[in-house]
Amino acid sequence: MTEPTHDEPHGGALGSRLNWLRAAVLGANDGIVSTAGLVVGVAGATDSRSALLTAGLAGLLAGSMSMAAGEYVSVSTQRDSELAALAEERRELRDQPEAELRELAELLERRGLSPEVARDAARQLTERDALRAHASVELGIDPDRLTNPWHAAGASFLAFTVGALLPLLAIVLPPAGPRLVITVLSVLAALVLTGFSSARLGAA
Amino acid sequence: MTEPTHDEPHGGALGSRLNWLRAAVLGANDGIVSTAGLVVGVAGATDSRSALLTAGLAGLLAGSMSMAAGEYVSVSTQRDSELAALAEERRELRDQPEAELRELAELLERRGLSPEVARDAARQLTERDALRAHASVELGIDPDRLTNPWHAAGASFLAFTVGALLPLLAIVLPPAGPRLVITVLSVLAALVLTGFSSARLGAA
Repeated sequence: MTEPTHDEPHGGALGSRLNWLRAAVLGANDGIVSTAGLVVGVAGATDSRSALLTAGLAGLLAGSMSMAAGEYVSVSTQRDSELAALAEERRELRDQPEAELRELAELLERRGLSPEVARDAARQLTERDALRAHASVELGIDPDRLTNPWHAAGASFLAFTVGALLPLLAIVLPPAGPRLVITVLSVLAALVLTGFSSARLGAA
Repeated sequence: MTEPTHDEPHGGALGSRLNWLRAAVLGANDGIVSTAGLVVGVAGATDSRSALLTAGLAGLLAGSMSMAAGEYVSVSTQRDSELAALAEERRELRDQPEAELRELAELLERRGLSPEVARDAARQLTERDALRAHASVELGIDPDRLTNPWHAAGASFLAFTVGALLPLLAIVLPPAGPRLVITVLSVLAALVLTGFSSARLGAA
């Protein structure tokens, strides 16, 4: 059997990368837009650089932490569902192993295997790792690579912080005159950049 | 071949349900917390019921739309990545079908099939639907059920709106005296309820 001639993510690696990518895109956009809205609002009330910095930093910290917490909670729900489906599958494998073996063969047959090959394949997959075989064929998940809430939380925290720093610096660094124009242009540039780099990351 | 004795989601149905479930949990929590923060802040400045209602409704509309847009953009990134991986796989199947067939057999063998059964299974799967077989075994995705950005956007819009209505009603309906206490208690109850029902939905 020849080795595959190219290097690819296999079974679940893609889903795991897409989990943090989605969280990072949501976090970056939210960081840019919500921080820009905050500092532009404060700039309407005062020219004080320290007031802008205080409000912006408070918004950055509150936003990145609440975003990370939200991702943690919602992706945990997703992971809990995966764990619940696996537990149900494990119970069925214990209580009715014969029916589960027939079901696996049946599903493999529907995917194009002949009845004989499907039966052999189902038996061999079950002997190696019954839970993994059923999780993959029935549920489309890999028990070794469940969705990770910490990855989503970390990615959205970092992305929100980086995204929020941009409008914050754009409004604090320039003098009061061109401040707003520079901030609006920076936000537009940042949103274009986020869209562009997420498209590149996605297609990579 | 006997029919499976129970009804389960098969291959991808779970992932598709978890996509909107995750988005709904994130949206509901954000709707509850951000609207509560907004109306409690306004209540510190005024007792006027109409001012509270105006601020709360504005926050509800802005929040639910921005949440839905954020979900649409970030889940689209995820879907684009899936489409890019499928396009790459399609290209490889066209340019080097023999190497891809060997790779599929090799991957099936690593999952526990004997070399002969793996070779037969790889050939039969490739004859039926080569792209679907490679997408499932190599990438862990189902080409017919890619992550849907509209589902995520719709779920988070609805969940944010329902979540935001609760603190809004809790602060607008009671008289000014017990207003804040009732709102805080409602928010706590709503967060517990969200956690509880998402756990139920997840395990269902």
